[in-house]
Amino acid sequence: MASMRALRKTLAAPGAELVELEVPEPGEGEVLVRVHAASICGTDLHIFDWNEWAQSRITRVPMTFGHEVAGTVEAVGPEVHHVQPGAFVAAETHIACGVCSTCRTGRAHICRNLRILGVDTDGAFADYVVVPATNAWIVGEGIAPDHASVMEPFGNAVHAAFGTEGGEDLLTNPVAVIGCGPIGLFAVAIARALGAWKVFAIEPNPDRRALAGKMGADLPIDPTAEDPVEVVLRETGGVGAEVVLEMSGNARAIDQGTRMLARGGRMSLLGLPDGPVTIDLNDQVIFKEARILGITGREMFRTWQQTTTLLSTGRVDVTPVITHRFSLEEFGEAFATAASGQAAKVIMFPGG
Amino acid sequence: MASMRALRKTLAAPGAELVELEVPEPGEGEVLVRVHAASICGTDLHIFDWNEWAQSRITRVPMTFGHEVAGTVEAVGPEVHHVQPGAFVAAETHIACGVCSTCRTGRAHICRNLRILGVDTDGAFADYVVVPATNAWIVGEGIAPDHASVMEPFGNAVHAAFGTEGGEDLLTNPVAVIGCGPIGLFAVAIARALGAWKVFAIEPNPDRRALAGKMGADLPIDPTAEDPVEVVLRETGGVGAEVVLEMSGNARAIDQGTRMLARGGRMSLLGLPDGPVTIDLNDQVIFKEARILGITGREMFRTWQQTTTLLSTGRVDVTPVITHRFSLEEFGEAFATAASGQAAKVIMFPGG
Amino acid sequence: MASMRALRKTLAAPGAELVELEVPEPGEGEVLVRVHAASICGTDLHIFDWNEWAQSRITRVPMTFGHEVAGTVEAVGPEVHHVQPGAFVAAETHIACGVCSTCRTGRAHICRNLRILGVDTDGAFADYVVVPATNAWIVGEGIAPDHASVMEPFGNAVHAAFGTEGGEDLLTNPVAVIGCGPIGLFAVAIARALGAWKVFAIEPNPDRRALAGKMGADLPIDPTAEDPVEVVLRETGGVGAEVVLEMSGNARAIDQGTRMLARGGRMSLLGLPDGPVTIDLNDQVIFKEARILGITGREMFRTWQQTTTLLSTGRVDVTPVITHRFSLEEFGEAFATAASGQAAKVIMFPGG
Amino acid sequence: MASMRALRKTLAAPGAELVELEVPEPGEGEVLVRVHAASICGTDLHIFDWNEWAQSRITRVPMTFGHEVAGTVEAVGPEVHHVQPGAFVAAETHIACGVCSTCRTGRAHICRNLRILGVDTDGAFADYVVVPATNAWIVGEGIAPDHASVMEPFGNAVHAAFGTEGGEDLLTNPVAVIGCGPIGLFAVAIARALGAWKVFAIEPNPDRRALAGKMGADLPIDPTAEDPVEVVLRETGGVGAEVVLEMSGNARAIDQGTRMLARGGRMSLLGLPDGPVTIDLNDQVIFKEARILGITGREMFRTWQQTTTLLSTGRVDVTPVITHRFSLEEFGEAFATAASGQAAKVIMFPGG
Repeated sequence: MASMRALRKTLAAPGAELVELEVPEPGEGEVLVRVHAASICGTDLHIFDWNEWAQSRITRVPMTFGHEVAGTVEAVGPEVHHVQPGAFVAAETHIACGVCSTCRTGRAHICRNLRILGVDTDGAFADYVVVPATNAWIVGEGIAPDHASVMEPFGNAVHAAFGTEGGEDLLTNPVAVIGCGPIGLFAVAIARALGAWKVFAIEPNPDRRALAGKMGADLPIDPTAEDPVEVVLRETGGVGAEVVLEMSGNARAIDQGTRMLARGGRMSLLGLPDGPVTIDLNDQVIFKEARILGITGREMFRTWQQTTTLLSTGRVDVTPVITHRFSLEEFGEAFATAASGQAAKVIMFPGG
Repeated sequence: MASMRALRKTLAAPGAELVELEVPEPGEGEVLVRVHAASICGTDLHIFDWNEWAQSRITRVPMTFGHEVAGTVEAVGPEVHHVQPGAFVAAETHIACGVCSTCRTGRAHICRNLRILGVDTDGAFADYVVVPATNAWIVGEGIAPDHASVMEPFGNAVHAAFGTEGGEDLLTNPVAVIGCGPIGLFAVAIARALGAWKVFAIEPNPDRRALAGKMGADLPIDPTAEDPVEVVLRETGGVGAEVVLEMSGNARAIDQGTRMLARGGRMSLLGLPDGPVTIDLNDQVIFKEARILGITGREMFRTWQQTTTLLSTGRVDVTPVITHRFSLEEFGEAFATAASGQAAKVIMFPGG
Repeated sequence: MASMRALRKTLAAPGAELVELEVPEPGEGEVLVRVHAASICGTDLHIFDWNEWAQSRITRVPMTFGHEVAGTVEAVGPEVHHVQPGAFVAAETHIACGVCSTCRTGRAHICRNLRILGVDTDGAFADYVVVPATNAWIVGEGIAPDHASVMEPFGNAVHAAFGTEGGEDLLTNPVAVIGCGPIGLFAVAIARALGAWKVFAIEPNPDRRALAGKMGADLPIDPTAEDPVEVVLRETGGVGAEVVLEMSGNARAIDQGTRMLARGGRMSLLGLPDGPVTIDLNDQVIFKEARILGITGREMFRTWQQTTTLLSTGRVDVTPVITHRFSLEEFGEAFATAASGQAAKVIMFPGG
Repeated sequence: MASMRALRKTLAAPGAELVELEVPEPGEGEVLVRVHAASICGTDLHIFDWNEWAQSRITRVPMTFGHEVAGTVEAVGPEVHHVQPGAFVAAETHIACGVCSTCRTGRAHICRNLRILGVDTDGAFADYVVVPATNAWIVGEGIAPDHASVMEPFGNAVHAAFGTEGGEDLLTNPVAVIGCGPIGLFAVAIARALGAWKVFAIEPNPDRRALAGKMGADLPIDPTAEDPVEVVLRETGGVGAEVVLEMSGNARAIDQGTRMLARGGRMSLLGLPDGPVTIDLNDQVIFKEARILGITGREMFRTWQQTTTLLSTGRVDVTPVITHRFSLEEFGEAFATAASGQAAKVIMFPGG
């Protein structure tokens, strides 16, 4: 029986351990993927650090984590029809039940019985991972295999940009992206590719601000040096941003986001704040008729089609965002780099 | 020169005074309306009481207040084409500039240079009031003249119910109305008339809860006796309300509203809280992909057409909501009644 | 091995034969349903008559036809999780592949590899039928078992009424329903329940016009006695119907539908014309900015939730539309009745 | 009293005459514009040629025609507030009543009492033209004055591209533009700028196909050399175009447009066919759930804001489409060129 390496939480404590395990077998409707690339998400940092959220959310150890993944289908279980061994796939990480009221009305990504790959199931920081066949997205031509694991967080940015109403308000309108971690950086480029004008990128870290410029931001703003609300209002003739894409989860930034929003504007909230957030609903939401939209995951699978088109046609090039590459053995360095604030997207390649 | 009575703030202090004034003349594009009915809004109570909001918002005294109004066009100024003397009209109270970016894109009710009748201009607690011809809505057949002054707050409820996205989520879905003042009571009936199921009405005042039942609420809930979040979840099989119409402005109720909202649900915020409100964005907005919509005024004039249809066809009967009627001289009693919590909608009829 | 009765096309010729067959076994992801009620659709009449369409569409005989069905789950195949034996279900008849681009973007009912129950698979005019578990909709409380087989055509009417854009244009607006066969009759009641005003029902058959009145039509129109375009325009003050629901498939009626449509209005086309149709695009579509929407099947499964709510809450009562009931042995009389124009919906009850 | 030159239809017959007239005075709410540039539209060719349409549509001669115009405000009438003499403006050519049901619901461009500049009023092929102040759009920085008269037809293309539903289906999806006259050429570039992929341009004229390539078409198609339906299906893996923008008015091309449309796709019809058009509604609209949208004019004034952004930011460069420039005296040559099929957009500059 074949064995493989897997990065596991073996203890309910900080850190992780690279261990040998049996290669799992795909069950009914599942596929086994040989991992080519697995990138590190903020969630993975929380699990590694074993912070408060991780302690409450991760209910069993040992477990393998990691969910941003791309690789080659090695084997398929029974009742798998549309993917074959040899296919190169990326994975949607929201595992939906398919039969709850939310799934049945086309919103599987907010399934009432949602499970997350690498959180509720064994994940992808390993040589092999099992995913539901439904969740395997054939990557297709035009997307570099080394870039395919970031389709999942890129999809977050796509979904935030389009919003839950369609995204037509991006077209020809000023858009502010708050927070330029990897998803914010992707959002900058997506807004540009979809006809937004002008694109503001608000980020205190100078390296990330520079990356935002590379991704197409018309005006990077350092919120520690100037008031981003003032800048956005000044640069839009007092109107404000028609769309705000909130990627920081910072309570102050969320408040600022509402203040820079135009009358009738839309704010997508994707960044997760540490706790409840206080908002001036009267002046910034009600009288302005703002629309505040919660955003999570990716529409299954409209977002993946949009992601595929944006990447495969070269409308967006994610190369500048992928700042670091490691082997699976180098996981310690990989996590330290991802946590350092010096990196954008960090990818581990189990094959080296 | 003819004179008229007008209820005026003559001092920057609580109270108001009924005085004699010259009947105003309509200017370019304006009409003079002989007031048949003028109803009391919460805003009018604030102005009467001269609370903190009124002190900061009302920038000149003396001024006549009152804005929910219906009456007969007595005279028209130059350049008025579509209304003639003799027409019976209600008034849209948002006076838009017509040329700002918001007006130019079909959202005049959130005009960047918005003025409000009876707040920024002399209002309708008088024998006569001048309004822009654009703001005069011909009431038409099927709506009792005594009911026409409530078309304005009824329109608030219509606009909140439809939301800024269209309103299709009302159809066949559970809807919770929080706060059963007049606008909440209207909202209950509107949701029912537009095919919602089931309609929850959350209100601590037992008289108003009883009125909510008369207006068609499937399930009135007393939030002081039971947890409205639990009730809504229980009665929807754990799914929650697809639409929440927040009419109370109560911070705790707003928080509860987010908690009773279904995944992917929509919350219209119309009630104005006293200050900033704290919301659990992570669990109640982001992970649920809730849509939080600020609502103010009425779409000009789509909401008025919808209002006219709902009322003139008998789809909604506002009779139970109109609990008290006074002459203009009885303004003291009228305001006391409106402030008492024993009343729903209070109307003054200058003609008696 | 158990046997059952099934109404089969045994020859590529008009008619059908009631034969004995083995009860089929449900495969992976399938359920076996003991048929309580199976209603006759226009498609079934075509198959029975073996008209030109049927000859080209039905590619294999013998086959069992019938697709509007409700009954009790008798057995489930492997990998069926959400329905259990004993459940009372109705069937969605569009069998989708789940993996094509259309399915993957939430539009499974227009799947690129669509198969139809009772057309491409053995159908429901039998004691038992096998359907994919995905297609089994648990009927739930509040809907009479005898009514449940019409949820499928009722869903057609619901989907046409909502359209592909949401359905908010139904609310408070004039709606014209053209053609009052069963689906048109359902549409009349649905439009009423969703707040339309006023509802026109255009139908030459006087019995069906009378039924339209029972279902809530504000104004039934006989197109052989008066020009329906003139009537609709006259009764809407020259504006026209904001929504036209075309259920007749009659080329002349489709043309009339475009002419009675308001500027900016929406027309849902569900009735299937015999051949290509000629439309005055300039004056009736382009200058009016009409939206012409093709409608087929039901959104899976948003439409089923809407259907369930409308029926289970009593918002719509389909009783008047169900005009005839037969046992399976009486199929000859059942088909003759359904074809006669004297009936609306005809249901066969294999249990008698 | 000042005089000016104006190109007039002086007879109900082919041709036009350049005559001297008094400079008109702006009335209430009107502005007088000194014409810098006036471009020739297909409608102007019809009026010049006095074809059947022109004979039935133009109800009075003499009249000055021309409506695509930009120039400097020379004087303003009473009750004009937002434009001042000296402003450089382009003109919206749909003159709306402002008070009909369509105008009152935010759709002034399909006003029930619509008048057209240069058709129902004296137009812009002159040194001066009077337009309603409402219709004057301040051009602003970043748009060359010589390009500003084409904002009106460019706006047609913008409106067709966005459709009446929002335009989100452009984003990342295949789009086919049928007919590459000036509006089709604009549409190609707009679709590209708004993130479409890939953009097909279908046009028999090789010069225009070459221009389509310059404007960003991914794949120009000669419909006389190959079947455009086959090409679009082949190049989209059998799926078809998610959006078809029909600019040709050719009946055969409209039919082809429906056939190249993807399931669930959207077709904007802007080109005006000569007569009624025959469509295969069953297979190309109903079973596919296609949406066919009539498009006319420009949303007032959302389309103008979108137009301004696309042009002023350089997202689209119209330079290649403006193929010929003439003085007003050269009108004979200008019209001959515009009618020749060798030109795209032809502009006359009264100032020379």
